[in-house]
Amino acid sequence: MASFDVHAIGVVESPLRDLDAAPRQVDEGAPAAWLVFEPEVLAGLQNLHVGDEVIVLTWLDRARRDVLSVHPRGDPARQLEGVFSTRSPHRPNPIGLHRVEITALDGRRVRVGSLEAIDGTPILDLKPVLSGEIGER
Amino acid sequence: MASFDVHAIGVVESPLRDLDAAPRQVDEGAPAAWLVFEPEVLAGLQNLHVGDEVIVLTWLDRARRDVLSVHPRGDPARQLEGVFSTRSPHRPNPIGLHRVEITALDGRRVRVGSLEAIDGTPILDLKPVLSGEIGER
Repeated sequence: MASFDVHAIGVVESPLRDLDAAPRQVDEGAPAAWLVFEPEVLAGLQNLHVGDEVIVLTWLDRARRDVLSVHPRGDPARQLEGVFSTRSPHRPNPIGLHRVEITALDGRRVRVGSLEAIDGTPILDLKPVLSGEIGER
Repeated sequence: MASFDVHAIGVVESPLRDLDAAPRQVDEGAPAAWLVFEPEVLAGLQNLHVGDEVIVLTWLDRARRDVLSVHPRGDPARQLEGVFSTRSPHRPNPIGLHRVEITALDGRRVRVGSLEAIDGTPILDLKPVLSGEIGER
């Protein structure tokens, strides 16, 4: 298989310190967090505004990459499912997708509401939500 | 910056052969395509069904990674914007996000409607759409 190199462009700063305490889905609740970007990518943050809905892509660096089947939501009472029909962090390329709202901007620090990623999680990308494509909340 | 290695878990098979012909947004129209997965990840495809809405993550291997500002939709008449407020393929980590519907399943081949990625684009991941998080179309 071909492979490619991704770089952390920033890091999550969150009160969530513990993988087990991290909510598994947005509807289980998660704290607000800061996205702290590297100075090198500051120019890419132009035109972001408070109130924007964005998708944060993270690198789930504690995930297992050799797992193809999981119990949904980690519940052993539920039948094993293929990882691509779940949002398990454990998957060949453990990239997290998080839809969040920007609540404050301070230079290379971007405040977002309800992010289900632990403190120190590397950030790979930030994209706007497109209405029609990703849809309304 | 920390860096990580991602692997292609499959490839897009599409009649779209040309970057310039590729639509820039879903609403500009795109053909149906096959996602052809590597035999090694077949077990991960269990529990996918026709009609599922999924998010395909791709590696946009022809993108420029040294670009932080772009003209939206490649239109030079529009003012430069930071890449993180656009969906430009040109960005530090050129990961594409594509929301699609599964229209057929055939072993390790998954047919999807309207995918704006050219033939041969590497696939990194496939995730279900979560209602509430990514939202309804």
